Amino acid sequence: MSTVYLNGRYVPEAEALIPANDRGFIFGDGIYEVVRAIEGRLFAWEGHAERLANGLAGLRIEAGALASSVTLRAVCDRLLAANALTTGEATIYLQVTRGAAKRMHAFPPPGTVPTVYAVASRFVPDRAMRANGATAITYPDLRWARCDLKTVNLLGPVLARQAAAEAGSYEAILHRDGFVTEGAATTVFVVHGGVLRTTPLSTAVLPSITRTVVRSCAASLGIPVREETTALTALPSVDELMVVGTTTDVQPIVALDGRPVGDGRPGPVTMRLQQAFTQRLYA
Amino acid sequence: MSTVYLNGRYVPEAEALIPANDRGFIFGDGIYEVVRAIEGRLFAWEGHAERLANGLAGLRIEAGALASSVTLRAVCDRLLAANALTTGEATIYLQVTRGAAKRMHAFPPPGTVPTVYAVASRFVPDRAMRANGATAITYPDLRWARCDLKTVNLLGPVLARQAAAEAGSYEAILHRDGFVTEGAATTVFVVHGGVLRTTPLSTAVLPSITRTVVRSCAASLGIPVREETTALTALPSVDELMVVGTTTDVQPIVALDGRPVGDGRPGPVTMRLQQAFTQRLYA
Repeated sequence: MSTVYLNGRYVPEAEALIPANDRGFIFGDGIYEVVRAIEGRLFAWEGHAERLANGLAGLRIEAGALASSVTLRAVCDRLLAANALTTGEATIYLQVTRGAAKRMHAFPPPGTVPTVYAVASRFVPDRAMRANGATAITYPDLRWARCDLKTVNLLGPVLARQAAAEAGSYEAILHRDGFVTEGAATTVFVVHGGVLRTTPLSTAVLPSITRTVVRSCAASLGIPVREETTALTALPSVDELMVVGTTTDVQPIVALDGRPVGDGRPGPVTMRLQQAFTQRLYA
Repeated sequence: MSTVYLNGRYVPEAEALIPANDRGFIFGDGIYEVVRAIEGRLFAWEGHAERLANGLAGLRIEAGALASSVTLRAVCDRLLAANALTTGEATIYLQVTRGAAKRMHAFPPPGTVPTVYAVASRFVPDRAMRANGATAITYPDLRWARCDLKTVNLLGPVLARQAAAEAGSYEAILHRDGFVTEGAATTVFVVHGGVLRTTPLSTAVLPSITRTVVRSCAASLGIPVREETTALTALPSVDELMVVGTTTDVQPIVALDGRPVGDGRPGPVTMRLQQAFTQRLYA
């Protein structure tokens, strides 16, 4: 059985129990991250740690040293070791909530101790899907107005990903007010007329760590990048479509809502980016 | 210590522990209700039970008999008895989640057992506030697109109620696209030109149980009611403003964002409705 981390202790997964009045359970009042580990090395840790800190600050959860970058990095390292995940690939899920308290919407009394939970799992990337492409659907972006915070209020993505699964697709590409925002659990890039485009950062999308790496790869490759959102009506006619993320890497999307994207095969710009990204990931 | 209900068992509150991988904790993937009990009698039970069932259906959580009206009513009755709450007033909090499962956004495998949690607490209405009025602030409605479902994705209301608390106010009145939707945890009614107005039901607001009772009270009293949303800019100049809900009853709002509503005292229509509502509540 997996060893997980809960509030300072390393325990068997079955003993990772949360009081039912934890605000994570009652309000979804928490922030999370998913981090990739390769041969025991955390990929882009600083970006994840910074985003977690920003999310906690955004919700005004004062976790201090309980959820500092130093503390959580040590937790990640120890979970990888304890679960024999220092070779091969793994993901680490980290979640910090405002803690257990008598139910009231407003913040609980000072001194309420945040809950910190982490679990490491074996991860095996789907190399055939990376090479051959996946399919996606479009789906309304049902989420709240602060999608820049990586909170556990995740019903919008849950319903979107379930719709995708029922359509036999990997991802749901979300749209709001007629424009693409991002994937249910990924960031969307399109290629059109030789230009790589992605939605500008705002409160409507997550500041994706992988997005930053992909942009850096594009810069290295001399691929022009524009921060510009794509109209939903324009999406079916882009030259190339891809979704990127911590467990998705650079994933070509070869069909959308059942119709081929471009010529229905992974596009050349997408595959150059995938190769450059993979080199950094496994460096 | 309070006795609470968790998955078929009545346990001391400290033993009400949820696996950390419960989808309630990881995704806020659940539905809840708060029910009022007076002298051991549940108020408007059928409405709450029906809304809970609708919410579970909306999220496609198949809880069956685990969360049927009959089952949950028996849970409420037993919790009231076990906690010496069959005299005086109480509230019962009920929550049903999609259950514990390996983390993935899409629904977990068939057979995943929903989690059912319930807790009864003493409730003492604030009679002075009911009589004298309370204050409110306006706040952006940050919530998602399915506010008709009473889910535990509650960060929008959490932040709104915290802003209200910091302003020394009871409630935050939410607005979206320039129009009032509802309170952070209440339904808003205004009185203007002798007409009672409230936002029409849609995916933007909760189908409030108390709203239905208040409308029925208005019909009995011959007060004309219109389902019509109020522009945020028109809100400061309404004749009367009130918020209603299971733990709020009919609560006059006498100041909004620091400025008096009407003459700054509870309005006559509000107080007639409050009296009629109170008669039904304590009947």
